[in-house]
Amino acid sequence: MDFQLVLDQINTELRPLMGQGGQVARYIPALARVSPLQFGIALRTCEGETAQAGDSAVPFSIQSMSKVFSLTLAIKALDEALWDRIGREPSGSPFNSLVQLESERGIPRNPFINAGAIAVADRLVSQADALPELLRLLSGLCGEAVQVDAEVAQSEADTGFRNTALANFMKAFGTLDNDVAEVLAVYFHQCAIHMSCEQVACAAGYLCRDGRHPLAGPDVISATQTRRINALMLTCGTYDAAGEFAFRIGLPSKSGVGGGIVAVVPDRLTLCVWSPALDATGNSFLGRQALELFVAKTGLSVF
Amino acid sequence: MDFQLVLDQINTELRPLMGQGGQVARYIPALARVSPLQFGIALRTCEGETAQAGDSAVPFSIQSMSKVFSLTLAIKALDEALWDRIGREPSGSPFNSLVQLESERGIPRNPFINAGAIAVADRLVSQADALPELLRLLSGLCGEAVQVDAEVAQSEADTGFRNTALANFMKAFGTLDNDVAEVLAVYFHQCAIHMSCEQVACAAGYLCRDGRHPLAGPDVISATQTRRINALMLTCGTYDAAGEFAFRIGLPSKSGVGGGIVAVVPDRLTLCVWSPALDATGNSFLGRQALELFVAKTGLSVF
Amino acid sequence: MDFQLVLDQINTELRPLMGQGGQVARYIPALARVSPLQFGIALRTCEGETAQAGDSAVPFSIQSMSKVFSLTLAIKALDEALWDRIGREPSGSPFNSLVQLESERGIPRNPFINAGAIAVADRLVSQADALPELLRLLSGLCGEAVQVDAEVAQSEADTGFRNTALANFMKAFGTLDNDVAEVLAVYFHQCAIHMSCEQVACAAGYLCRDGRHPLAGPDVISATQTRRINALMLTCGTYDAAGEFAFRIGLPSKSGVGGGIVAVVPDRLTLCVWSPALDATGNSFLGRQALELFVAKTGLSVF
Amino acid sequence: MDFQLVLDQINTELRPLMGQGGQVARYIPALARVSPLQFGIALRTCEGETAQAGDSAVPFSIQSMSKVFSLTLAIKALDEALWDRIGREPSGSPFNSLVQLESERGIPRNPFINAGAIAVADRLVSQADALPELLRLLSGLCGEAVQVDAEVAQSEADTGFRNTALANFMKAFGTLDNDVAEVLAVYFHQCAIHMSCEQVACAAGYLCRDGRHPLAGPDVISATQTRRINALMLTCGTYDAAGEFAFRIGLPSKSGVGGGIVAVVPDRLTLCVWSPALDATGNSFLGRQALELFVAKTGLSVF
Repeated sequence: MDFQLVLDQINTELRPLMGQGGQVARYIPALARVSPLQFGIALRTCEGETAQAGDSAVPFSIQSMSKVFSLTLAIKALDEALWDRIGREPSGSPFNSLVQLESERGIPRNPFINAGAIAVADRLVSQADALPELLRLLSGLCGEAVQVDAEVAQSEADTGFRNTALANFMKAFGTLDNDVAEVLAVYFHQCAIHMSCEQVACAAGYLCRDGRHPLAGPDVISATQTRRINALMLTCGTYDAAGEFAFRIGLPSKSGVGGGIVAVVPDRLTLCVWSPALDATGNSFLGRQALELFVAKTGLSVF
Repeated sequence: MDFQLVLDQINTELRPLMGQGGQVARYIPALARVSPLQFGIALRTCEGETAQAGDSAVPFSIQSMSKVFSLTLAIKALDEALWDRIGREPSGSPFNSLVQLESERGIPRNPFINAGAIAVADRLVSQADALPELLRLLSGLCGEAVQVDAEVAQSEADTGFRNTALANFMKAFGTLDNDVAEVLAVYFHQCAIHMSCEQVACAAGYLCRDGRHPLAGPDVISATQTRRINALMLTCGTYDAAGEFAFRIGLPSKSGVGGGIVAVVPDRLTLCVWSPALDATGNSFLGRQALELFVAKTGLSVF
Repeated sequence: MDFQLVLDQINTELRPLMGQGGQVARYIPALARVSPLQFGIALRTCEGETAQAGDSAVPFSIQSMSKVFSLTLAIKALDEALWDRIGREPSGSPFNSLVQLESERGIPRNPFINAGAIAVADRLVSQADALPELLRLLSGLCGEAVQVDAEVAQSEADTGFRNTALANFMKAFGTLDNDVAEVLAVYFHQCAIHMSCEQVACAAGYLCRDGRHPLAGPDVISATQTRRINALMLTCGTYDAAGEFAFRIGLPSKSGVGGGIVAVVPDRLTLCVWSPALDATGNSFLGRQALELFVAKTGLSVF
Repeated sequence: MDFQLVLDQINTELRPLMGQGGQVARYIPALARVSPLQFGIALRTCEGETAQAGDSAVPFSIQSMSKVFSLTLAIKALDEALWDRIGREPSGSPFNSLVQLESERGIPRNPFINAGAIAVADRLVSQADALPELLRLLSGLCGEAVQVDAEVAQSEADTGFRNTALANFMKAFGTLDNDVAEVLAVYFHQCAIHMSCEQVACAAGYLCRDGRHPLAGPDVISATQTRRINALMLTCGTYDAAGEFAFRIGLPSKSGVGGGIVAVVPDRLTLCVWSPALDATGNSFLGRQALELFVAKTGLSVF
């Protein structure tokens, strides 16, 4: 299949729609001033073939897409033991809801809602240098130095009252072992990591190759662990729209409020699309359409 | 792959566990007196190859597995218009919960929770002979006459206070067009359909062949519609354990409290397993293990 | 205190506001066609002095105000045993909510939300002729024949899907002993009782005299039982606005969607006000203002 | 009425039950080590008559009883404007629940649940020296220097993860104007105020005298404001047991997890009872019984 042609077609079809729908995230200034007139897409096959179109080399704030990589580190370190404190079910509630957390006594529903990702961060803090480890993992996976945008990280911390509430609430229930401020520092920094579509498509490569490193490197995680992360992405990766994504797109995906979405076609390729304007569910307005087009044009879907 | 060998191994491994865990559904006498000492499994590939083991020819009450077929009829008749009154997101709540229905103003979260299936039944009642149509569909799909167990249907009606509550609640919100009693009659009867593993594995065949009839017959639904039903089964098909099923098994599945589970490997095969004792999530205790074993032995999974 | 003067002043102040705010209940035709241009008020002291103004002799549909009298019958028959199946706490949710009922396993929060009143009706059905007993009680209390408006009762039944849902839901939990249809028949008929402000002010008289009959008659209930009904009216009697009523008015009160409100000044008097247009909380728009004025002018309040 | 005799009788009846039921609050060491073998009761009439029995002069941690006094300061300063950010309805949920706060977008249900009291503290922080003002008010009201137990205040802060969650959550919704840490410091310190039954009974005196100072001093608040605080105490003052308190006791009351309860008989007297062991609803096990006995013996109740 000529993937470069497919991505070019998608770029041609969707570029005219930039700025026509959705809204850039406004909760911190550093995100609010990103231009919505950007659209990038990149993929990398299991065999290492790449394709890209549009603003695919422009770095953006990966935000919640980072949850896939922090989860990978935690599963690598703890495997099944991780699930003592985090569930694996879709939440049926907004990504930052406290209701579910209360009725289920401090155990977050899954690692991709904010509470769950904070609980994952707590597990990483217990291991060692959580943030440096995560940056080391990402840099190795895409073969380039990956960094945190310090201004974004600071803004996340300054305005993160709801995440601070979630973390304290879990601390009250005993879900977190470590100091709340230390855990949140990791979480706020991981959300502020900057990467381009090309970098993400490469870094996520282990998810379409049963856990094997996309470049030269040791296996990241096992085949079973990989399959499980993909399952979690499909059922819980796109906030309240996970059912809708499965229904219309049918690929394990994880989105972020920076406007990026990473998707996996098991045994075939990983794909990253980015456009900053978000729809009402917090997913990239054009990113979602790009994935629908990709599936329609290629027939690639897990179903 | 020698599927007959795989099913024989699974049957050999799991038969000794019959009666060792789980509990037969007790809410109606006709289900409560079914012996837990039964285990059957059957599959049918896209090419028509079959394999079976254990009590694969014994008819059982398909219960909520019927929701896949009633949904198929409704999608065939209404396509996208069906989704005006039914959501497509995992529920995050027990299958017969009213809470979600209240907060979302009478729109059930998905067609596989009870409220959603009742809403689907209402749509079928608006079309025509809902129940005869469904039986006709099933009989055609498996090539044998499929019937309702009248005693089970009557028991469902006599004890279905919660389903009656759900239906009246949706009627109050305007989700149902037809008379509550008439809609519930269809729902209670579809739950009381009796089929064997072999029949179900054959009948569900269109789900692994892009909607094409498993025997000689016209296309059941389109490829896109088929893919969407598979997506809904994966995200919502096994009650509160959908995330867990995706995580451990990774196949679109739909279970029933009669102890059956139907699963799909897209483009490969459909599979039905049955054992009456249920685990705490309402899914067949051995059926779940059988699916895990099947995936472990064959490597077949959508992820 | 010259109560006649007070009621005349209130009538003079509020009559010009008739039709200026609120909306007549629209869920059944018989209520929807009642003119909002009506306002009546009547009181009766412990000593038997009466005062009235405006449309105080016009009968109206007492609706949920009937819950006070059915509760009285149930307490008379069962005393403490009544509380095995009904709570005594404010609900914190709308009067016809199912959420609370689900989380508290079918036990309604208090006897004044719909679910609670249906549970009270079930207790009365277990005793004997529930509806005739209730009409006998009311007729004796006000010294005139009290009747049900058959058209209203039929409309309640025809449109009562939410109440039917509540009743079936409680039946599923075992809160109701009797046939759902029979219990609902009592409930729908009690809501359709017609009385005037003067009749209600007299009939409720036992609530300000420690349970003693307002006319010639045996004690209705004990002093302790009376105090408890007053407490329930104060904490739970006016739907979601109970806190607001306590805060602004400070009298045990029970309202109905027919536009009536009955209020008690313990050891002094009972009061009934009626005006059909309702505010957003389902309480009479002018009735509420009338009670505020009454308290302001007389200084009578339990606090 | 011989109030001294009544209190002596209550003390005689209940002292033998000390240590027989309930549990001392365990969430901070300073409270956990308080002996449950203590019981005190004191009252003060509108005319200044006092009566006391048992450990009525022993200071204890007033905890949530402080919410009455901080609310008084806030109402004095802001009157109606206070209610822009705080509701006045019973919560129907546990005192430290986040669920209600989420569904009602950060507006706490009433000033006596923790979230509401934290919102009140925020209003006081906006005024000026919140904590010194509160201590000044209390010292003036009881004629003796009132102080904070520094160890208790520190422990509250060290373990107050849930309150920190509530405060951050409200900050996220814009309910709090001030720095979260500063608001919580006031809240944790007010909970750590130590007073005896005799001091509290005197300090609360304005609540039974239409807002007039119990000793020599200017009016504390207006008669209407006083009546409203009493209404809030009755409907919301005793956590999840407010309905039960109204039903069995019928007096405006506010309890604290230190084991104290303050109650008001409007126009007659204020009463404080203390015994450290709590029942399952977080109210003093013997305190509740003492209030029931007091009402039974004196017939004093608002209903």
